[in-house]
Amino acid sequence: MKKLKIAIIGCGQIARTQHVPGYVNSGLAEIKYVVDAETERAASLAADFDIPHATSDLAAVLADPEIDAVSVCTPNASHAPVSIAALNAGKHVLCEKPAAMSYTEAMGMKEAADRNNRMLNIGVVNRFNTAVNKIKALIEEGELGNLYHVYCSFRSHRSIPGLGGPFTTKAHSGGGVLIDWGVHFLDLIFYALGENAKAMAVSGAAYGELGRRMKDYVYTSMWAGPPILDGIFDVEDFVTGLIRTSGPTISMNGAWAQNIGERAMFVEFLGSKGGIKLQYGGDFTLYTSKNGMLYETAATFEKENMFEAEIKSFLESIASGKKNRANIDHTLVTTQVMDAIYESAAQGKEVVL
Amino acid sequence: MKKLKIAIIGCGQIARTQHVPGYVNSGLAEIKYVVDAETERAASLAADFDIPHATSDLAAVLADPEIDAVSVCTPNASHAPVSIAALNAGKHVLCEKPAAMSYTEAMGMKEAADRNNRMLNIGVVNRFNTAVNKIKALIEEGELGNLYHVYCSFRSHRSIPGLGGPFTTKAHSGGGVLIDWGVHFLDLIFYALGENAKAMAVSGAAYGELGRRMKDYVYTSMWAGPPILDGIFDVEDFVTGLIRTSGPTISMNGAWAQNIGERAMFVEFLGSKGGIKLQYGGDFTLYTSKNGMLYETAATFEKENMFEAEIKSFLESIASGKKNRANIDHTLVTTQVMDAIYESAAQGKEVVL
Amino acid sequence: MKKLKIAIIGCGQIARTQHVPGYVNSGLAEIKYVVDAETERAASLAADFDIPHATSDLAAVLADPEIDAVSVCTPNASHAPVSIAALNAGKHVLCEKPAAMSYTEAMGMKEAADRNNRMLNIGVVNRFNTAVNKIKALIEEGELGNLYHVYCSFRSHRSIPGLGGPFTTKAHSGGGVLIDWGVHFLDLIFYALGENAKAMAVSGAAYGELGRRMKDYVYTSMWAGPPILDGIFDVEDFVTGLIRTSGPTISMNGAWAQNIGERAMFVEFLGSKGGIKLQYGGDFTLYTSKNGMLYETAATFEKENMFEAEIKSFLESIASGKKNRANIDHTLVTTQVMDAIYESAAQGKEVVL
Amino acid sequence: MKKLKIAIIGCGQIARTQHVPGYVNSGLAEIKYVVDAETERAASLAADFDIPHATSDLAAVLADPEIDAVSVCTPNASHAPVSIAALNAGKHVLCEKPAAMSYTEAMGMKEAADRNNRMLNIGVVNRFNTAVNKIKALIEEGELGNLYHVYCSFRSHRSIPGLGGPFTTKAHSGGGVLIDWGVHFLDLIFYALGENAKAMAVSGAAYGELGRRMKDYVYTSMWAGPPILDGIFDVEDFVTGLIRTSGPTISMNGAWAQNIGERAMFVEFLGSKGGIKLQYGGDFTLYTSKNGMLYETAATFEKENMFEAEIKSFLESIASGKKNRANIDHTLVTTQVMDAIYESAAQGKEVVL
Repeated sequence: MKKLKIAIIGCGQIARTQHVPGYVNSGLAEIKYVVDAETERAASLAADFDIPHATSDLAAVLADPEIDAVSVCTPNASHAPVSIAALNAGKHVLCEKPAAMSYTEAMGMKEAADRNNRMLNIGVVNRFNTAVNKIKALIEEGELGNLYHVYCSFRSHRSIPGLGGPFTTKAHSGGGVLIDWGVHFLDLIFYALGENAKAMAVSGAAYGELGRRMKDYVYTSMWAGPPILDGIFDVEDFVTGLIRTSGPTISMNGAWAQNIGERAMFVEFLGSKGGIKLQYGGDFTLYTSKNGMLYETAATFEKENMFEAEIKSFLESIASGKKNRANIDHTLVTTQVMDAIYESAAQGKEVVL
Repeated sequence: MKKLKIAIIGCGQIARTQHVPGYVNSGLAEIKYVVDAETERAASLAADFDIPHATSDLAAVLADPEIDAVSVCTPNASHAPVSIAALNAGKHVLCEKPAAMSYTEAMGMKEAADRNNRMLNIGVVNRFNTAVNKIKALIEEGELGNLYHVYCSFRSHRSIPGLGGPFTTKAHSGGGVLIDWGVHFLDLIFYALGENAKAMAVSGAAYGELGRRMKDYVYTSMWAGPPILDGIFDVEDFVTGLIRTSGPTISMNGAWAQNIGERAMFVEFLGSKGGIKLQYGGDFTLYTSKNGMLYETAATFEKENMFEAEIKSFLESIASGKKNRANIDHTLVTTQVMDAIYESAAQGKEVVL
Repeated sequence: MKKLKIAIIGCGQIARTQHVPGYVNSGLAEIKYVVDAETERAASLAADFDIPHATSDLAAVLADPEIDAVSVCTPNASHAPVSIAALNAGKHVLCEKPAAMSYTEAMGMKEAADRNNRMLNIGVVNRFNTAVNKIKALIEEGELGNLYHVYCSFRSHRSIPGLGGPFTTKAHSGGGVLIDWGVHFLDLIFYALGENAKAMAVSGAAYGELGRRMKDYVYTSMWAGPPILDGIFDVEDFVTGLIRTSGPTISMNGAWAQNIGERAMFVEFLGSKGGIKLQYGGDFTLYTSKNGMLYETAATFEKENMFEAEIKSFLESIASGKKNRANIDHTLVTTQVMDAIYESAAQGKEVVL
Repeated sequence: MKKLKIAIIGCGQIARTQHVPGYVNSGLAEIKYVVDAETERAASLAADFDIPHATSDLAAVLADPEIDAVSVCTPNASHAPVSIAALNAGKHVLCEKPAAMSYTEAMGMKEAADRNNRMLNIGVVNRFNTAVNKIKALIEEGELGNLYHVYCSFRSHRSIPGLGGPFTTKAHSGGGVLIDWGVHFLDLIFYALGENAKAMAVSGAAYGELGRRMKDYVYTSMWAGPPILDGIFDVEDFVTGLIRTSGPTISMNGAWAQNIGERAMFVEFLGSKGGIKLQYGGDFTLYTSKNGMLYETAATFEKENMFEAEIKSFLESIASGKKNRANIDHTLVTTQVMDAIYESAAQGKEVVL
């Protein structure tokens, strides 16, 4: 197979630590361009990985007919415009999560992909997480019986990223802990549940109580910091919600920051025959019963690098023309549900989809 | 003060272990009757506590003008009719929780109390729990800042009581884990939040997946057992919900039984300045910050016997004519919210109050 | 079924806490006599359980034709003579563990049972332990694949019973930690392995290093104490061994006392497909693998009272005439192996059976 | 002192990470040659450490009169022939553990050393482990009193190295977990016990149940992997044994892999006055008693690099002509005992030495 030619758009941490190594290690692609509005950042990344071109001229890159596909690693606000421009230029796109700032934007991206007959994948990388796939298989094998409820908790004591910066400024990010962390939890849940769980109604509430009081925000470390105390915080640092689907209901609580000093990052799948508790990013425990005994089973297994698997699958999907599990068609539900949670929170009532 | 004369109606565990000793130890009352449809049960209780009369004739007891007040300790289904009969007979009433099987029934009880100008208290005993009252005081003093969300979890691995019996038969109990356990959690939350948190809308879902499969239900012990395998299970063993109030939102998950092997019985109060995690029936931890430090404070204190405090307060409230914290007027909200959760679960949509 | 008439011979702790309640609760028997050389001890037991006769005259009891069966709860040294006398008098016998002080003695008991056509059961009560039976079932279902090795550890930091008294005097006990604790471990192993594991050769060593230095023996509590510092300690407080069978090998270490401060009381069953670790007297963990995952499963279940089950089964076996799992025929192997370990330790070489 | 000239034979991990740095850091030697059948591997090692010559011509190296000593870092199967050739060429030899594949081979090595009057040391590196030497000193000072038993456990859940490759092919390795891991445990025990503990008889059993079922072998990582599923596994992955010496007995269980999910790598020394539990490769705990108190003492100390100490001691021993603790004369016992365990396992009976 001839190697696909790639451009990386946006040269921040996710590009450097995951996308670039992912393409390099895949053996199926070569990166021709790294693109960033800050030319220096692009140049540094190019130098470290022997990539031929570093540029800030996105239009020129998209005009290069040699380029087969791009990774969109820019801030959330430009996911939609950059992806649509790339699709319109005939490129396949792997766009980092969240797909977009709103469901409307994401729908626009999907239409561009359909119109141009190109792959549009979203970086919902937990669909390539080994534990998640083991759980999906157990659910499909009926190990849990009737799966009636899922609870997910993505709560941390102090983890607001870059307080006052793009992460906490709605115009750049589209939202706070829900769009940043919740996207992973909701997406892996809908993936594990499969096509039988259609989202039907959403009730939610969202608060930005800790981040808003910037000067009083005590923390011990800050990712994407330091804080910009005269910056903006207009997103939520806490979210709660109840989602009705055609299958199980889903309840959730999420916090970038909260005055409860326990980190609780997990998903619980409750079934009539069995249940599973997944520690996010780690292992899971399976609860069943047999011969009058209650079984609590800790499962251990070799874990794939999920970013490498995501990128390899994207490249193979381009080659085969078959949409894979991370295609916009399969992942749009997550954006739709998040959008509805924000709307429900704003209106103070349930939103029917 | 002359001792009040009391009748205990219903002679099960809660009467024997809490109400009878509560009146006896109060020093403010004497029990004249114990009443039970099973005369033997009444007789045994009377013998053990030197109570003069054991009878199954409720009408005669209510007709005795010497009786000032009654405790209603019967199964849920007769809370309303017995309490109303007693109120109509001019007695003050302390009725065990839940107030009734539905909000309509509870409203009928309140009207009877108003009409007859008698005290009607509900056995929401956590309003007399020392930890709960300490928390209520901290909230009122502003220690938590803006209190924006409460999460409560009343979840057990295997605790369905008396599978197939009255607890799991809706006609006798009115419901499952929500009405049996959730009542305590919701009531203490509304009590701690105070009058500023008016319930406004409720979204919920309820399932009876484990209890319904009676023969497959594996457990290691059963309260109110043994199971009656040809009995009825038509209530929920799992409930989830989101409650909007004029103050904080409340999210909750509850399980008499579930295939997650962790007991999680707690309430978390999330505020902008501080937070509290209460281990149900136990101590609490307070999370705050100060001078750039994150504080985690374990609170220890002497605990009152909450049943004794409940009964003493009931007796004092009769004497003083002042409605106390457990009066139906203050606790009706809990029944209203539970009723709405059941309705929301049945209709599959949010219920506005 | 007519109730069987029972005599209890030996009125120490095991008689009072297990055998007497076991017969009483069985509903299948009534105790006519309690017998003890110390008449007072017999009288006190009789009084507490409303037993008609307390006596020290064993011969008279055995001569009473009404007596169907006896429990032998005397010290180890009289297990054989008392059991044989009872069998010769036509009584069925349930003799506490260990069967006897030596394999020769135990063979004599078996011959007496055979000759008189009476049941002779040994109090190897773990054969009625729920966990042990669950494990036996899992082994028989092939859950472990080829079971090739068993390791058992019965080691405590400081637990010599009654230092200087009958427990530590070989003439009374027949041995130390092996005959007192090891009997339970070895017997449950041979029971779980079933008839396919015939004992073939034994290599062992035994030491009495801590108990022998009586005055230097530091401890924090002593069962069957206090120590008799001018008493006798001529048994082992540590034993090690390797047992070859026609099935798996068995290795073991046991200590009533040792200068390692960890309690380690467990049995590990190692199979090609799965393994089990049983915490003695408690639960077990099952180790398997599935779909590329390593599974660690904690099993929980309702536990029967094993002494009551043992006694009920003994009584039913008398009634049916069918030898049960605790019959001398099935349990003799344990005595044989212990005897061989002592012999191997004494000779300093392997003993072939 | 003039620097000794060294050749390193075999350029795998142990050569690269331990022997080469060990000689370099000693200040007492310089490496002239690195030798490997794969010239590239030798060349790479030479380049990384500035070693003048990389070659596959062992005969030429041994013929170089400038070479004083060699490190033998080849696979187990060539330990004996390479060491003997080097000794016959007049070189001192430090041969990695195990000394050889059998006791006969090791005896042949010793004879070659004696005949040529050259040092032959074995890489039993735990003789230079700080914790082991502290323990040896405590034993010699009588801190444990009469040391009567040693138990060693070298058990892992899943650690078969290079399944199907040289490690698991008897013709290359001589055996499995015993010769690979057990050698360290047994050797450090015999070293700590000193000359008074002569090995006298051995009883053992060995199984290769997990490794033999290659396709069913689930693991999470594999050292020296990946597995070669059409390769050979004809060694043991589990071993058990009981060793009689003129001093304490030694019992052991070892597993490269087993269906018990606990890693247990330790040695316990049981004495009449005290005991020691050494966590292999780590610290130890000392258990004693004093003035009626039980003492549990965690010992902490600065740890030497044991490989550097081993190599420095080898070089000094060449210089002084005095055999050190790792000399074949002192370490032969370990090979003899391992050989006997394999023989006992094969014959199914005790082997007297």
